[in-house]
Amino acid sequence: MAQSVVILGGGMIGSAMALDLVQGGGFDVTVADVRTDVLSRVASRTGARTRQADLSTPAAVRELVGAYDLVIGALPSQFGYRTLQAILEAGRNCVDISFMPQEATDLDGLAREKGVTAVVDCGVAPGVSNLMVGRGAALVDTCEAVEIYVGGLPQERRWPFEYKAGFSPGDVIEEYVRPSRFVENGKVVVKEALSEPELLDFPGVGTLEAFNTDGLRSLIHTIRCPNMKEKTMRYPGHAGLMKVLRETGLFSQEPIEVKGARVKPLDLMSALLFPKWTFAEGEGDVTVMRVSVTGTRGGQRTRHVWDLVDRYDPESGLRSMSRTTGFPATAMLRELAAGRIPGPGVFPPEILGAREGVLDHVIGELKKRGVRIDYRAEAA
Amino acid sequence: MAQSVVILGGGMIGSAMALDLVQGGGFDVTVADVRTDVLSRVASRTGARTRQADLSTPAAVRELVGAYDLVIGALPSQFGYRTLQAILEAGRNCVDISFMPQEATDLDGLAREKGVTAVVDCGVAPGVSNLMVGRGAALVDTCEAVEIYVGGLPQERRWPFEYKAGFSPGDVIEEYVRPSRFVENGKVVVKEALSEPELLDFPGVGTLEAFNTDGLRSLIHTIRCPNMKEKTMRYPGHAGLMKVLRETGLFSQEPIEVKGARVKPLDLMSALLFPKWTFAEGEGDVTVMRVSVTGTRGGQRTRHVWDLVDRYDPESGLRSMSRTTGFPATAMLRELAAGRIPGPGVFPPEILGAREGVLDHVIGELKKRGVRIDYRAEAA
Repeated sequence: MAQSVVILGGGMIGSAMALDLVQGGGFDVTVADVRTDVLSRVASRTGARTRQADLSTPAAVRELVGAYDLVIGALPSQFGYRTLQAILEAGRNCVDISFMPQEATDLDGLAREKGVTAVVDCGVAPGVSNLMVGRGAALVDTCEAVEIYVGGLPQERRWPFEYKAGFSPGDVIEEYVRPSRFVENGKVVVKEALSEPELLDFPGVGTLEAFNTDGLRSLIHTIRCPNMKEKTMRYPGHAGLMKVLRETGLFSQEPIEVKGARVKPLDLMSALLFPKWTFAEGEGDVTVMRVSVTGTRGGQRTRHVWDLVDRYDPESGLRSMSRTTGFPATAMLRELAAGRIPGPGVFPPEILGAREGVLDHVIGELKKRGVRIDYRAEAA
Repeated sequence: MAQSVVILGGGMIGSAMALDLVQGGGFDVTVADVRTDVLSRVASRTGARTRQADLSTPAAVRELVGAYDLVIGALPSQFGYRTLQAILEAGRNCVDISFMPQEATDLDGLAREKGVTAVVDCGVAPGVSNLMVGRGAALVDTCEAVEIYVGGLPQERRWPFEYKAGFSPGDVIEEYVRPSRFVENGKVVVKEALSEPELLDFPGVGTLEAFNTDGLRSLIHTIRCPNMKEKTMRYPGHAGLMKVLRETGLFSQEPIEVKGARVKPLDLMSALLFPKWTFAEGEGDVTVMRVSVTGTRGGQRTRHVWDLVDRYDPESGLRSMSRTTGFPATAMLRELAAGRIPGPGVFPPEILGAREGVLDHVIGELKKRGVRIDYRAEAA
């Protein structure tokens, strides 16, 4: 009998996951969301079952997921940690892509106690990037440097920001404000977000500008490497404008007095940017990622490099960001369902990526779905 | 016996005027303002008499100015037109530098009826620029082109805006939003503010960027010339950033909903920019202006060019913008007091500039006060 899966959240990424699991077969797929319009769209586009449910409380999540064999978490960031906790409390294996500011591995004890496994941060970056770093670090004896460059962009560049967001502008701006943690010479250092811009060329995409953001997350603790950085990429100029807006105070969450009203500048900024930064129906996007791990094995210095350039798929109507984020999670779910993921515990992807075959398997699954990743090892 | 003068408004420019009139002698000088702290500063710095008065109603203005022989208007733009009207109704000769969106010459009939003379728009630009255009147009038989470039800037350039304002950021931003009127091929054309950027070099200042703003005002009607433009100058890059902010909607006066409150984005923007755009005590500024009039006389094509580059005067503590705006008005007031200005009526400066000697006189007075203007006529 097919295992049952419930996907928490029927947004762009949740519906891409549902479509993939339904088309792949072998699962009885349900999508849960509080929004009825979202659910009817998911039902008509994917053929998955739907279930209307308010998932804003842990109790509601526990009650819902208890009825399914497996869970995928694809809720907005504000629900991330407590939703994962509720899934584990309900004793369910799961794959999660929700961003959470907290450390998911703090729930490792709970998962072990319940005898279940959670693979967290399992999208594209964090996600596939972590698998690559884990694999790269396993391919060398001494790891010298880890570099992750990633960006999700609109295909069409429009003045002035040349950017659209797959999610809320407020969440994007949060990345431009939050101090970024890096590892340099074996020490964790904190740098200003948007700092240290550099230009990189990607064939077919052109020149992009990469700048510091806080994206290393669990890698800081799990990977023994003295130099690690993660940078976000946008079309050149975007970061400079964001710095100006930040300097002007428009990203501040401190309320200021405006003609008698108290207003958080970021709230006004989000309201103004939301319509400008939202993808139109059918508007194309592109996802670009480059991960490199440099190290030595047997005296040979090598750089392992993975490149991903993926575009909107007009046939399925799925944006690249939905596919590159959703398909690693569904690939991982299949592995979890097949019992090929160790456990119990909470696993960031780099732990699994270190094992031979896991990254290759995910890359193979992505390739079947039209998302190509190129790998090369070069003398460094 | 000395004639009595009342200066309406004791701000930066009003106090520069007071200082100049007191030091020059020949007038009994009073500064009127509603702010007592401003008045005590004026009294201690200039030696002028002061009078506390709320000038926000025409009746108050009429009552006040009736007690003096001559009036200088230096009030903020929102009081400009009705204050001028009240001065004329009171039957007083005056010089005015207040910006007003209305046409001051609409009050010409009132001035004639009362038998008094008003010289309006009598600062640096509009003001000296108008004298130059009037003079240049009188120096040719056929006028082909008028170009005015003007900017007030901080001496020290600070990222990101490299700008400070002598007045409210809201008023500066209004210039970046208001459509700009130009004359091209004999027709009035309207262009977007901040458009058509071009780079110009000024020795000692460096490269500045000039862009369209709505500054021709009365010249559109008074000067017969088929091509006239006025552009504002800032350090390069400023205009581009302002265009981004405008495009983002931050200069809009349409209220938007921000978490339950209704907020005009421009109000929030002004609140954020005010501390950043305000000159610090003793902070230096520079005023740059270039006016050219091209035309033919007796078959000879000539370009008449006036250049002004003026800086903060540490000795007097007067900013350049206060000096270059205030001293043309005091020079004109002396001419008015001496009976050398025709009348009655409302005169924009270009009408007076057309008469031989007027511009030279004002340039001479500015030179005595350290503000140098270079003139050259070149074959064109």
